[in-house]
Amino acid sequence: MISKTNGSEPFKLVSREFKPDKSIVKFGDIEIGSNEFIVMAGPCSVETREQILETAQAVKAAGARILRGGAFKPRTSPYDFQGLEEEGLKLLAEARRATGLPIITEVLSSEDVELVAEYADILQVGARNMQNFKLLKRLGRAQRPVMLKRGMSSTIREFLMAAEYIAFHGNSRIILCERGIRTFETATRNTLDLAMVPVLDELSHLPVIVDPSHGTGKRKLVMPMAKAAVAVGADGLIVEVHPCPEKAWSDGQQSLSLDEFASLMEQIRPYAALEGKRIAATEPGPLRLEPMAFGQGASAQV
Amino acid sequence: MISKTNGSEPFKLVSREFKPDKSIVKFGDIEIGSNEFIVMAGPCSVETREQILETAQAVKAAGARILRGGAFKPRTSPYDFQGLEEEGLKLLAEARRATGLPIITEVLSSEDVELVAEYADILQVGARNMQNFKLLKRLGRAQRPVMLKRGMSSTIREFLMAAEYIAFHGNSRIILCERGIRTFETATRNTLDLAMVPVLDELSHLPVIVDPSHGTGKRKLVMPMAKAAVAVGADGLIVEVHPCPEKAWSDGQQSLSLDEFASLMEQIRPYAALEGKRIAATEPGPLRLEPMAFGQGASAQV
Amino acid sequence: MISKTNGSEPFKLVSREFKPDKSIVKFGDIEIGSNEFIVMAGPCSVETREQILETAQAVKAAGARILRGGAFKPRTSPYDFQGLEEEGLKLLAEARRATGLPIITEVLSSEDVELVAEYADILQVGARNMQNFKLLKRLGRAQRPVMLKRGMSSTIREFLMAAEYIAFHGNSRIILCERGIRTFETATRNTLDLAMVPVLDELSHLPVIVDPSHGTGKRKLVMPMAKAAVAVGADGLIVEVHPCPEKAWSDGQQSLSLDEFASLMEQIRPYAALEGKRIAATEPGPLRLEPMAFGQGASAQV
Amino acid sequence: MISKTNGSEPFKLVSREFKPDKSIVKFGDIEIGSNEFIVMAGPCSVETREQILETAQAVKAAGARILRGGAFKPRTSPYDFQGLEEEGLKLLAEARRATGLPIITEVLSSEDVELVAEYADILQVGARNMQNFKLLKRLGRAQRPVMLKRGMSSTIREFLMAAEYIAFHGNSRIILCERGIRTFETATRNTLDLAMVPVLDELSHLPVIVDPSHGTGKRKLVMPMAKAAVAVGADGLIVEVHPCPEKAWSDGQQSLSLDEFASLMEQIRPYAALEGKRIAATEPGPLRLEPMAFGQGASAQV
Repeated sequence: MISKTNGSEPFKLVSREFKPDKSIVKFGDIEIGSNEFIVMAGPCSVETREQILETAQAVKAAGARILRGGAFKPRTSPYDFQGLEEEGLKLLAEARRATGLPIITEVLSSEDVELVAEYADILQVGARNMQNFKLLKRLGRAQRPVMLKRGMSSTIREFLMAAEYIAFHGNSRIILCERGIRTFETATRNTLDLAMVPVLDELSHLPVIVDPSHGTGKRKLVMPMAKAAVAVGADGLIVEVHPCPEKAWSDGQQSLSLDEFASLMEQIRPYAALEGKRIAATEPGPLRLEPMAFGQGASAQV
Repeated sequence: MISKTNGSEPFKLVSREFKPDKSIVKFGDIEIGSNEFIVMAGPCSVETREQILETAQAVKAAGARILRGGAFKPRTSPYDFQGLEEEGLKLLAEARRATGLPIITEVLSSEDVELVAEYADILQVGARNMQNFKLLKRLGRAQRPVMLKRGMSSTIREFLMAAEYIAFHGNSRIILCERGIRTFETATRNTLDLAMVPVLDELSHLPVIVDPSHGTGKRKLVMPMAKAAVAVGADGLIVEVHPCPEKAWSDGQQSLSLDEFASLMEQIRPYAALEGKRIAATEPGPLRLEPMAFGQGASAQV
Repeated sequence: MISKTNGSEPFKLVSREFKPDKSIVKFGDIEIGSNEFIVMAGPCSVETREQILETAQAVKAAGARILRGGAFKPRTSPYDFQGLEEEGLKLLAEARRATGLPIITEVLSSEDVELVAEYADILQVGARNMQNFKLLKRLGRAQRPVMLKRGMSSTIREFLMAAEYIAFHGNSRIILCERGIRTFETATRNTLDLAMVPVLDELSHLPVIVDPSHGTGKRKLVMPMAKAAVAVGADGLIVEVHPCPEKAWSDGQQSLSLDEFASLMEQIRPYAALEGKRIAATEPGPLRLEPMAFGQGASAQV
Repeated sequence: MISKTNGSEPFKLVSREFKPDKSIVKFGDIEIGSNEFIVMAGPCSVETREQILETAQAVKAAGARILRGGAFKPRTSPYDFQGLEEEGLKLLAEARRATGLPIITEVLSSEDVELVAEYADILQVGARNMQNFKLLKRLGRAQRPVMLKRGMSSTIREFLMAAEYIAFHGNSRIILCERGIRTFETATRNTLDLAMVPVLDELSHLPVIVDPSHGTGKRKLVMPMAKAAVAVGADGLIVEVHPCPEKAWSDGQQSLSLDEFASLMEQIRPYAALEGKRIAATEPGPLRLEPMAFGQGASAQV
């Protein structure tokens, strides 16, 4: 379907030709690329102990299987909040202990891979770093699964070639993430290119996650695009959620509140069922009460 | 959500501010924008009597409510097939008599509006003509609903301003159509911008149709993107269907066969149901047999 | 250099393969594509008799060889000024009588070709109409040279195929115009794609004009990009000029004042000389005084 | 001209508001941003001792002031040549000793800054790393000037914010480089956005270099776009040159031969003169003979 010989060597290890069967990325009791639709959720940035714990418990209760949260933040401006760094990683680890949810967080540099891998269950490569080849090579030697986000103006061939770097350097546990591309349209932050989900599925055996938060940049659009992502065949979602989006230190306008996230999970369930996929069950009441206690702490502190 | 004051007057008549309730475009027994999910289907170009009749009966049997087919074709090259013109319109009219399906077909020029309106139930404005203002003005005086396709590099504001031309000149029966935008990505013919469905729904009261055929340019992608379009809240689809896509005179690589289209209709039904929308029922056997007879004629002739 | 076989028939009549020698489009004493660098200048819209006469005399005095001015205006909003239409054509004709400058003006629709051709020396096709095939076909039968602007998201192949329509239908006097493409960058109105000047020169024998006014959308950028256009090998420029840009009825922010235009002409002269091209001489004083008288009238009236 | 308040803190240290006078980046006897037009030239990749020495002497003889050459190469495919790394840096240093030309070379990762800074006179940040914030921060503490290339889909605001990172972290010797953006157009590798030269000059005090090699991707287009870059007001060029482009290990199709580069230098001289800028003189014969001796070695070895 896509020419793979334009300019240099094609991707090999990540291609369907090399491995016809779909890959399932496993760790703990989680299998990404299986018949379970996996939702990763959490705040853009880890801000406070209360914020991350409250969010973790709420997203778990709603059916999320993995907690996201940024500790090292790539920010356009040097004057913006750059993340809590290792302190953020420690808070994520605490949230994992409290909820059992494994953690995905971004690693910005080859120098940080070792440190981040100590805490995280999945190492995320952001769109701006998709062609940070030193980082990709280092991740090839990491003992963790890697989620690679598509660069904001990267072709599918370049995207798969970036994944090929990780595979070529030794790590085959790779998850692809479509998060929107840059176009002339300004009504949305990016243009979420959902057709790439089936295109990637044809070309590669790797599982594909969709990010409707960065993919649209607007809270109201996350729900409809999440449903569309399920319908188009994605293996999961990564969604930004915050106990109080208006007060988020970053990306508040595209973050869902805890209630909105719970509603999203309910709404996507029947779509996942149509695709023959299950979603983790909602957890019972008690857990949903706790976050409110944390919520008070958080609002007092923020 | 979108600034409407950038550069010149904003759209008014087509906005939610002007008319908060969603518009339903009605004609015959069809209501676009209602709780019925409307599928328009048919060949890119009308080629032969057999081709259009066979297609019309098959798409009707599968649940399509409107027959599409091009008589005046906008082609990049002057050496490509330019359409059967009025002869094509007559064949469309015959297909309408045979099936009862109303017809949508493209009008390329202000000069042709009167002629095309004699035959067609909906007048389509193609992406290349979205800012053909003479045509838009003339359509404002037409007695037919108009389906306006988004230009391939048009912003949402420009798209709604083009619709405003039609409304301002007197015709409020307007249907919007998202059909993909031009980006750097070449794995698909266009990048289908599904987030525009909820964006348009917020800004405008007009119904929105999605074209997954032009929006992807590849047969295999039509089905997943059709499902995604339902899930994201579209009011309907327009799909290219041909009895023998390999032999189509135009756009064969993005056309579904009759069987593929029937399968698509079956697959989108439960998604429409989740959105609270119904789709016209499949018709019984006899009608499905006839096309096969036509099919023989068509293959003999082509 | 560019594949010409992607998708359908390649361009033929407009190609270097068909005609290796560069074409010179001649009319009156003007030769576009020769060793004279041709500057077309004038207002975006014809507004008043004084405005167009004052501008015509000023741009002629500065060395422009052709007067531009819009009578039929393609405007994004139906609420914006749509042009003086035939009255504007008559004013352009009067300015031609007064100055001897031939006229270029846009024709928006196939229906208007006959009317506009009565008045204009060159018929301009705007970017939004580059693939208005009915218009292109009609222009193929017109007895006037045609200047075809590149569509805002058109590839070079599509651009040359649009020119091929005109040539195929009988008119070989075609001038190409690069006027900027739409990209994600918003610091300029469009991204002026100057590399297309040598690319077009390699692929086609047709002369190429550059529009730094629409190509940037900002007055301050017109001068540097005009110099760059000369240096890259363009055959001429088309520049928006207005006696009082702040009061222009359209595109004021990208229009030069009469003095700024005179300065631009002086600045590009030595660059044209380096390219082995001459530019029409500046005219003597008397003519430069007259516009000031008109200027009073214009400012009184506007 | 450009809104600087969209989304987060604006750039400050690199803005004209902060420092109205243009900055001159000085090192050795070179001043970038002064009235000398500075040309950087050399191969995409350092390949062999003969190749880099021959190229260095030839580009110096033609008037280049700085030698470029890649030792750490960012390549789309892991199967492509990745650069000679430190061995390449040593060869560059040898070429500097032989010719006196200072060296610019790319640094791919924060981890490599110290090593590369031992050898290089200017540290280059490639387009793919424009938002590698860890690298930018480390470069803020480097004792070398930095040339920052615009990301292939970066807005001007993002570009200046990336420069702001370097300045904020302590290094004010920054050179900006326009190298083309990614658009839908495929006739060129990138779309060289020359209007950004005057836009950057208005917004920032930093000098601006243009890269017509990556900006077009095609040898034939380097010359006309180099002239255009001079005319639009750039402070210099960076050009890929190779003794035998057909045999280059990377980017051969956009590299000039030694003779083509000498011709380019001759052709841009009068344009620079028109802009009030001087270019280093061509050196006498003997030096031009030496490269031919090296050339034999190179061709024998390659």
